Amino acid sequence: MQQLPVIQPGRPAEGQRPVFDKIGIVGLGLVGGSIALAAREVWPASLVIGVDNKDVLETAMRLHAIDVAADDLIVLAEADLVVLAAPVRQNIALLSELDDNVRQAAVITDTGSTKRAIADAARALPARFTFIGGHPLAGAAKGGLEHARPDLFKGRPWLLTPSGDAGGPAVEQLSAFARALGGEPRIVDAGTHDRMLAFLSHLPQLTASVLMAVVGDAVGKDGLSLAGRGLADSTRLASSPPEIWKDIAATNEDELGPALDALITLLQDLRRDLPFGERLTEVFTTAAGWRELLTK
Amino acid sequence: MQQLPVIQPGRPAEGQRPVFDKIGIVGLGLVGGSIALAAREVWPASLVIGVDNKDVLETAMRLHAIDVAADDLIVLAEADLVVLAAPVRQNIALLSELDDNVRQAAVITDTGSTKRAIADAARALPARFTFIGGHPLAGAAKGGLEHARPDLFKGRPWLLTPSGDAGGPAVEQLSAFARALGGEPRIVDAGTHDRMLAFLSHLPQLTASVLMAVVGDAVGKDGLSLAGRGLADSTRLASSPPEIWKDIAATNEDELGPALDALITLLQDLRRDLPFGERLTEVFTTAAGWRELLTK
Repeated sequence: MQQLPVIQPGRPAEGQRPVFDKIGIVGLGLVGGSIALAAREVWPASLVIGVDNKDVLETAMRLHAIDVAADDLIVLAEADLVVLAAPVRQNIALLSELDDNVRQAAVITDTGSTKRAIADAARALPARFTFIGGHPLAGAAKGGLEHARPDLFKGRPWLLTPSGDAGGPAVEQLSAFARALGGEPRIVDAGTHDRMLAFLSHLPQLTASVLMAVVGDAVGKDGLSLAGRGLADSTRLASSPPEIWKDIAATNEDELGPALDALITLLQDLRRDLPFGERLTEVFTTAAGWRELLTK
Repeated sequence: MQQLPVIQPGRPAEGQRPVFDKIGIVGLGLVGGSIALAAREVWPASLVIGVDNKDVLETAMRLHAIDVAADDLIVLAEADLVVLAAPVRQNIALLSELDDNVRQAAVITDTGSTKRAIADAARALPARFTFIGGHPLAGAAKGGLEHARPDLFKGRPWLLTPSGDAGGPAVEQLSAFARALGGEPRIVDAGTHDRMLAFLSHLPQLTASVLMAVVGDAVGKDGLSLAGRGLADSTRLASSPPEIWKDIAATNEDELGPALDALITLLQDLRRDLPFGERLTEVFTTAAGWRELLTK
């Protein structure tokens, strides 16, 4: 007698054909946790292995984000995909531990916000590993596993920065993985990535945090009670934790530095122009034009 | 036989007891238009007189925002309240025309984002006028009459900056007016207002516009297509029109200048610290603390 398939609500009866059988995720924050949740939803037959500290793993098990939990990389011995989703410099440090722990051929990727530093470090990996840098452009106002959700990547670009052959099978596999999780994979070189993101993400983040610090220090708690939606929007990013951004700043200094210089120079221009408003009119007009594109 | 009152949907049967009988509003943008809409809703028996150019007045009549429309101040001859709701320096220029046009005793207020400059100019008004500076802290991402709405002021502070006796009857009247329109009137001196608003509103505005200009110029249209919610939030204010902000910057230069200096100095600190992250950790931690207060 044939067995009927068990239909689970919210999951396809059999899932999509798995791209990877054993998916190891190191670092279960907002992004790592969301990859885990999405992968379990899309490929119920694949094994999702989470590596983090015991507290985070406990939360991950409670949220049904992973199948296997461990605080040691040895659990990745049979992984065919390893996703490094810790802060950038932790990911770089983890690379050197993969040879001793992952025993078979595997695709190695990461989710860090800078791509050149890890690509450089990945050149030292043994030949059985294929490293392809990755950066899903998805985020939320608050980080951490408790804010992870399987639809975090839906409709968002997922940048891939292969070092060598962009047409290789591992790139194909990783693109299929990103697409199955809702993302839109795009190939870009690591240098272009780091320059673009310095402006699109790192500069706005630093600006928001500096603005919030300056305003808060100047007006205090009572003053902030008068603040409207304008200040709230402008500083929404300022809730971000320093640990992640320390690594981003350090590994993208040569791009972020000049981006900050451009911002500082224009602020100085405007400061000198306050009584006249000519430069202000130019800058506001330019800004409103770009802002219009952003809403489309 | 007694007549039954006509109940109009969305309006109280008789309205509240009017604070002013003839309310003149000069400048029907987002704020002036919203005051007009709210006043007509709350006091159907009062006359709302709008002064602006012919195009704007046509829109105002179409939106039923005003009872009387004119492009000349002479229409304010019998007003007992005049609200100047044009950009700051236009409001200041308008003050000198009131004596020739408003023929009776009247309370004069404004809605500008800086308060010292207009308070200084108002000292030259004839004695039959009582000037009380006003600033409803309400806004929207987009300005203009087409975005005006009667509930714009609901639950938002409406700052009043009387020059002389803060307990005078005109302050009482204007407070009642602001409260009836949904606002929360608060008395503050003009100097404190300008210093607070330099940080709470003017600095965030300039920062958002500068950030958007720098990012847009660096990455262009294609780059912006990758932008996420972080950049969109940080730059939402960058749609603001330059005309209004030119006046604010010019009339608050001595407060906004030092606020910009504080921002620039901290950005320079962070720029030097990029490889190390010590200052970054401090600033991000401070910022996250203030941001937490802002959401409450």
